[in-house]
Amino acid sequence: MIALQSYVSGRWTAGSGDPVPLYEPATEAVIGEVRPGGVDFAATLAYAREVGGPALRALTFPQRAELLKGLAAMLHEHRDELLEIAGRNGGNTRGDAKFDLDGASGTLAFYAKLGEGLPAGNLLADGDGVQLGRTARFWGQHVLAPRPGVAVHINAFNFPAWGMGEKMACALLAGVPVIEKAGTPSAMLAFRIAQLVVESRILPEGAFQFVPGSISGMLDLLGPMDAVALTGSARTGALIRGNSHLVARNVRVNIEADSINSAVLGPDVESGSDTWEQFLGNLTVDMTQKAGQKCTAVRRILVPQALVAEVQEALVERLKAVKVGNPLDNDVRMGPVASSSQLRDVRAGIRQLAEVAEVVLGGAEPMPGKGYFVSPTLLRARDASAPRIHDLEVFGPCATIVGYDGAVQTAIDLCNRGGGSLVASAYSDDRAFVERLVAGISPWHGRIWLGSEKTHGQALGPGAVLPATVHGGPGRAGGGEELGGLRGLHPYLQRTAVQGDRAVVGRATGLETGGA
Amino acid sequence: MIALQSYVSGRWTAGSGDPVPLYEPATEAVIGEVRPGGVDFAATLAYAREVGGPALRALTFPQRAELLKGLAAMLHEHRDELLEIAGRNGGNTRGDAKFDLDGASGTLAFYAKLGEGLPAGNLLADGDGVQLGRTARFWGQHVLAPRPGVAVHINAFNFPAWGMGEKMACALLAGVPVIEKAGTPSAMLAFRIAQLVVESRILPEGAFQFVPGSISGMLDLLGPMDAVALTGSARTGALIRGNSHLVARNVRVNIEADSINSAVLGPDVESGSDTWEQFLGNLTVDMTQKAGQKCTAVRRILVPQALVAEVQEALVERLKAVKVGNPLDNDVRMGPVASSSQLRDVRAGIRQLAEVAEVVLGGAEPMPGKGYFVSPTLLRARDASAPRIHDLEVFGPCATIVGYDGAVQTAIDLCNRGGGSLVASAYSDDRAFVERLVAGISPWHGRIWLGSEKTHGQALGPGAVLPATVHGGPGRAGGGEELGGLRGLHPYLQRTAVQGDRAVVGRATGLETGGA
Repeated sequence: MIALQSYVSGRWTAGSGDPVPLYEPATEAVIGEVRPGGVDFAATLAYAREVGGPALRALTFPQRAELLKGLAAMLHEHRDELLEIAGRNGGNTRGDAKFDLDGASGTLAFYAKLGEGLPAGNLLADGDGVQLGRTARFWGQHVLAPRPGVAVHINAFNFPAWGMGEKMACALLAGVPVIEKAGTPSAMLAFRIAQLVVESRILPEGAFQFVPGSISGMLDLLGPMDAVALTGSARTGALIRGNSHLVARNVRVNIEADSINSAVLGPDVESGSDTWEQFLGNLTVDMTQKAGQKCTAVRRILVPQALVAEVQEALVERLKAVKVGNPLDNDVRMGPVASSSQLRDVRAGIRQLAEVAEVVLGGAEPMPGKGYFVSPTLLRARDASAPRIHDLEVFGPCATIVGYDGAVQTAIDLCNRGGGSLVASAYSDDRAFVERLVAGISPWHGRIWLGSEKTHGQALGPGAVLPATVHGGPGRAGGGEELGGLRGLHPYLQRTAVQGDRAVVGRATGLETGGA
Repeated sequence: MIALQSYVSGRWTAGSGDPVPLYEPATEAVIGEVRPGGVDFAATLAYAREVGGPALRALTFPQRAELLKGLAAMLHEHRDELLEIAGRNGGNTRGDAKFDLDGASGTLAFYAKLGEGLPAGNLLADGDGVQLGRTARFWGQHVLAPRPGVAVHINAFNFPAWGMGEKMACALLAGVPVIEKAGTPSAMLAFRIAQLVVESRILPEGAFQFVPGSISGMLDLLGPMDAVALTGSARTGALIRGNSHLVARNVRVNIEADSINSAVLGPDVESGSDTWEQFLGNLTVDMTQKAGQKCTAVRRILVPQALVAEVQEALVERLKAVKVGNPLDNDVRMGPVASSSQLRDVRAGIRQLAEVAEVVLGGAEPMPGKGYFVSPTLLRARDASAPRIHDLEVFGPCATIVGYDGAVQTAIDLCNRGGGSLVASAYSDDRAFVERLVAGISPWHGRIWLGSEKTHGQALGPGAVLPATVHGGPGRAGGGEELGGLRGLHPYLQRTAVQGDRAVVGRATGLETGGA
């Protein structure tokens, strides 16, 4: 039984108020607790702004990159211990836990590498300089400067390591101190990582603070140089974005929310082909990895009518082969969902989908014994246009086959019915189909993953978020954007146009402008 | 007496409800009217989305650039007529009117030129492609795609031509139809431009709609592919950003609001030097151009204590030489403010400032005769730290001298007390002073304008917004961003990461990726 603590204002604090129990989702055993109160938010923010921020910005981009490198190595060093915590408190199989933890250290390492090549200062050039007057004398250069505020990161329960790691990497490299709020049900992994971060003394004091419980009152204390990033539900996202204080003070908000991601099978794909195998393989991973608790997981499987029966049969066969059980058992391939409330929501969601779709595998029925287990559940829509298919995210091992007529415009319309998604994947070797699909769905998606013969066995599936490409999507998906290389630092930087004599601008920004 | 009309759903409509009178601010004569009601907002939006958008996106970037070129030429052709309307309904001197109108045609021409060089399609590359896997096969390319929505532009009264022109230029080039809402008090110029745009048939039907009256109910009908851009007060900005419908549907909002811009005189600047002359010359223009009704105008003049008396004397002398009167008279250099409510607000603001500052020229007293005239008003702060100096924007020919100790850190702190500004200007030939100032104020400013010996006579002043550099600022200034070359199109484009086999990604995006 571990009592989680907050690390704020330079010390660990146990919190106050009634303890919230933390469970082992495979057994329902209580293995920890969090006391939600007792953190002085104003002091926490002041510590970040007055101690952490100046210390970070006393370093250069490459020096901060060095810190990230240290954090990545430190996580790797403690990998086995951390994987075990993820298995116990997160319900993760070893594969799931690696996906989360190696994602965190990989993203930290990616930004360490990226930061090595940035200027040894605190201003980045944003694009080339531009001549503003009739002669080259009057010159403009956009720069990106670290904002002297604090980054409040509200992380989701499903990726306690990666979610915290990828947000930290971007803010810290930008020169902005972080306050990491963990998703409470799975907070034991984040807490252990926070302990290691603090003990390692890699980061300057005040650059990293950690809260495993509630931080809702903190948002009312933020100012225009601060940023809030949330990974969570669309509903929480709207609450934060509409928070009257954040609105009044123009606090930057970056939301990565629910989305009803789609996978499209092109009508050209023949069963047994490499593209077909890749489609089925990726779907199986996406539906069962992390027990389907991934914001990027496929929820709608768009299949040409003529291929629906065959896809369904093949997918059922593969899903049946996935062994579900205690993730600490080596042969188990899918664990439970993270909490009793997730279990309740997933079951309720499956029941709602079952009103407009046939359940062809699994379903909402409880599984025998203890633990928050859900069967891999595949449905087939009765009517492709039923709103619920496109609106309801069931955050578990659950997806729905949606038949379509094989026309690319139908596939486009159905994908876009999600109202804005993080990712759509498409499997086709028909050039015209893929071109039209990309043109038609790109405005509604943050990412499009194209499966083809040549990517079979060569590419991570669409569920994996890579630091070099953006993560986020419009509309329903929250309208935010993370990662994408240097783009991931933008929420923490201010773009400023510096205008003046070319040589003066060059000296003042520390950037070479070629002026004399 | 002109009755302004809306151009919506392909026809002109007179509106309904009680007419709002439009005045000639120099004489208070009623010269026009707007009926605020009678526009079917749902139909207007549908017309933009279903008629205008597809027609625009049937064109390529360079083809849309050609449309902007046509609009710029058309405005230039009607220049004299339009300048006269600006003088009459806007209270603009001929110089003011040119600044507005030539700003509009110049910005349209800038984006026409920029668009010529864009790809002949509807996807833009965003950065270079990136290798995502261990081999170069798995590849990512970010693209920017036009959003299939509508751009609702809420323009301010002070720049009826430029404000509409610069917003239109960016949205139309991006491929997004516009609905232009004019600032009602000065809407006669925008209305005449709208008539010319419609009559010219340069734009495809539905790409341009125009409303001179209220559109507040329209915002509740917007969706995730739409964008709202406002130039207006911080208060209106917060109302729009906090609008619960816009929040719930993740509608993009871009706000350019009030700001309390500062000009800093470095302690090294000697009276009579080129830098000194430039400082005084720019201040005089900024305070009196458009009767000080510019969101970029200087409100706080930061002067080393030792130079305050001399600056004050020189500035008073220059301001006294500015002839105030009916802007249609050729020798008049400053006209009235735009409306009786502006006059009331400016007088009230001066009175509020006068509680914490000495009035050294002008003041809140009414001027004799008809018209919404305000004297050029210069104040000197009694206490540099008085909050009102840094919080209250008086949107007229009014600025306050704020003495400081000559230390760069003091100047930084005072500039940043504005809580986020569109622009700060600094006049100094001391390299270290300028470097430290830029580093210290850049996160709080959208633009920094550096005056030095070599820019004297070579550069447009800080009040001018140039299309090649961004316009907008953090915090109090609204947190939005416009213009800045291609950056100005971003509010109307969706960034999407396309991942897959390198050759497939290249073909699907129409971008060369070098894959085979």
